[in-house]
Amino acid sequence: MAKRRLRLVRGMITLASDFGSPYPAAMRGVLLERDPDARLVDVSHELPRQDVPGAAFWMREVVPYFPPAVHLVVVDPGVGTDRAAIAVAAGEHVFVAPDNGVVVPAARELAGENSDGDGQGLRVWEIDDADAASSTFHGRDVFAPAAGDLHRLGIEEFAALDSVERVDDFETLSLPEATPTSYGADGEVLTVDDFGNVITNVPGGFLEGVETVRVNGQAVPAVETFAGVPPGQWLATVGSHGYVECDVNRGRGDEAFGLEPGDDVVLERVE
Amino acid sequence: MAKRRLRLVRGMITLASDFGSPYPAAMRGVLLERDPDARLVDVSHELPRQDVPGAAFWMREVVPYFPPAVHLVVVDPGVGTDRAAIAVAAGEHVFVAPDNGVVVPAARELAGENSDGDGQGLRVWEIDDADAASSTFHGRDVFAPAAGDLHRLGIEEFAALDSVERVDDFETLSLPEATPTSYGADGEVLTVDDFGNVITNVPGGFLEGVETVRVNGQAVPAVETFAGVPPGQWLATVGSHGYVECDVNRGRGDEAFGLEPGDDVVLERVE
Amino acid sequence: MAKRRLRLVRGMITLASDFGSPYPAAMRGVLLERDPDARLVDVSHELPRQDVPGAAFWMREVVPYFPPAVHLVVVDPGVGTDRAAIAVAAGEHVFVAPDNGVVVPAARELAGENSDGDGQGLRVWEIDDADAASSTFHGRDVFAPAAGDLHRLGIEEFAALDSVERVDDFETLSLPEATPTSYGADGEVLTVDDFGNVITNVPGGFLEGVETVRVNGQAVPAVETFAGVPPGQWLATVGSHGYVECDVNRGRGDEAFGLEPGDDVVLERVE
Repeated sequence: MAKRRLRLVRGMITLASDFGSPYPAAMRGVLLERDPDARLVDVSHELPRQDVPGAAFWMREVVPYFPPAVHLVVVDPGVGTDRAAIAVAAGEHVFVAPDNGVVVPAARELAGENSDGDGQGLRVWEIDDADAASSTFHGRDVFAPAAGDLHRLGIEEFAALDSVERVDDFETLSLPEATPTSYGADGEVLTVDDFGNVITNVPGGFLEGVETVRVNGQAVPAVETFAGVPPGQWLATVGSHGYVECDVNRGRGDEAFGLEPGDDVVLERVE
Repeated sequence: MAKRRLRLVRGMITLASDFGSPYPAAMRGVLLERDPDARLVDVSHELPRQDVPGAAFWMREVVPYFPPAVHLVVVDPGVGTDRAAIAVAAGEHVFVAPDNGVVVPAARELAGENSDGDGQGLRVWEIDDADAASSTFHGRDVFAPAAGDLHRLGIEEFAALDSVERVDDFETLSLPEATPTSYGADGEVLTVDDFGNVITNVPGGFLEGVETVRVNGQAVPAVETFAGVPPGQWLATVGSHGYVECDVNRGRGDEAFGLEPGDDVVLERVE
Repeated sequence: MAKRRLRLVRGMITLASDFGSPYPAAMRGVLLERDPDARLVDVSHELPRQDVPGAAFWMREVVPYFPPAVHLVVVDPGVGTDRAAIAVAAGEHVFVAPDNGVVVPAARELAGENSDGDGQGLRVWEIDDADAASSTFHGRDVFAPAAGDLHRLGIEEFAALDSVERVDDFETLSLPEATPTSYGADGEVLTVDDFGNVITNVPGGFLEGVETVRVNGQAVPAVETFAGVPPGQWLATVGSHGYVECDVNRGRGDEAFGLEPGDDVVLERVE
């Protein structure tokens, strides 16, 4: 069993960050220098910048589609502080990331835990970063070297390194949950995607049987897909993440609705 | 022969979309989950957003440079409507895309057809998408699974699946062609590239022997390359696609000329 | 020894340009058409646009982290002029690029030369580009074919091609160096990164023991990392490149300080 995990984990390294370009290239170089045959796959380097909950949402939505891999995730507003660098094993997946919660929802999802899970299903190790060459780019100097070592060694051998220590304490992070109300639901904007679609935390079931919904007072049609309204018109729909989204067909929902990540969203069913 | 096609088609999967980031990662995950050894190559995830003719132009210009592959192409403003999902075989290349014409010019080019071709050289299959998990992200839920299956099985075995049906009818799309006039040519902007270069549909031969050309009334030098005029100056040249482009050396042609995709462009030769 | 170089050089092709998207895909296609098994790794396609010294800085900072590879680098404002196309061997790395200096600092770094090096450690070949299909996209028509050939053949066999000629003359490029002054240092902005961090050419040692520094007259705290000041506050720190950076914690230093690439930066230590 351990052997199988080892083999699978060594198959692939995914990279995710809020770095834009060209900083991810330094991480690619570090990984390939350690193993020129490593298979690198980009998740995204445009994660919401320095927005840990936003990035955590995307990781949870995307990473479970991947086969077992080492996932290098660097959204790290606390770089250079005493926040730890950690490895987190969830099923046959292993994350390498700052200890700020950014990989916790994804890891819980992969371990089959709900968001109230106490992390029993996750195994976490702290990675010594005292010798980092810089105090501003741990993606290159701490996380990529660790991910490369982990990929090369497998998790069991990596965990046995002197620079790696099993820990019980780590930063957890739960994405906010919407509250059902007498009139509908009080929710929050989890993130805005690249199309400007506003992704709320209200479960899609809320729209079942609903034809019109008020979003912060504004009545819009509840439709099955963007094309359910003419181009340019506002709408609410159940997005691909299973949540209610506030969108504009061929337009930007964030601009139309005036909503940003973290904003409150009051949804009311209209009979 | 079928065997050779099979082998080649299985070699590589290219990905193209207008998704930006991070949605393409979900498609990568779906593909790699089906075959962790699949070779994924990005064409672009910045295709002109929800602009089917613009995306079709880029596909036609770029894909023929690739060796035989499965090409996953998702520019899909009609997602969630009853537009079909299709696979299109052209020579040793196979496309998986929405049935909106976005891959037709590229497929015709690869099949050696001109734009008036009746599609005889293309083989097209409809892919059942009734069970899609979402009605807004068929890239993840329909097209990537189909491309993964196609890559794994090869086109012959894929075509024999119950969920796949050979069809004769599909959406065609022809890029607009310029009209020669007594004074020059009446054309149209096909697309604007990332540098702001305005790519028209007027064939490059139009500029042969011409030193100055009027673009919608504005006289600019016709030169062999950007550096044929000083930085900041407007110019017309034959771009890398073989069409007349309206550019600015080290600047943005779209802003200078005030031109957008779909705009009319009247070109006049100045003696 | 030659044999070892040959093997390693064939392992990987990195791609770097200022092309954005989707032009890099044409280069990928050309490379894969020549060798469907080539391993392509993106460095960046968002290098500072048509900014040769800025791109040269990033190449020098990033490429040395990679294992030996063929590095295709296209930042080429002089495309279509008589500037040559060259291959540059530095240690076990080989660059293919326009002869405008863009790869020289990286190549010198890899060859273990300082910036005053006379290039003795570099071997340079000119590549015939007379038959290029376009005069505006040599990335696709000259550099990618050459990089593909080089990857396939190895440098020794590539160098023996009729279209390739060893040369002694090539464009050099040295990044500007800061001048120590009685009050501190007179420097220059080398580049601005994607976060808006302003990277100067003043060596990080300048900040040693300094608590406050004046940047063009503006006093800001000198700290070890972004998180050394509250969010939104200006700071100076030693960045991951080893130079003094002018940044804003969770904000954009370029906007705060009003600095762009090439701008003068006068730094004064405040006792």
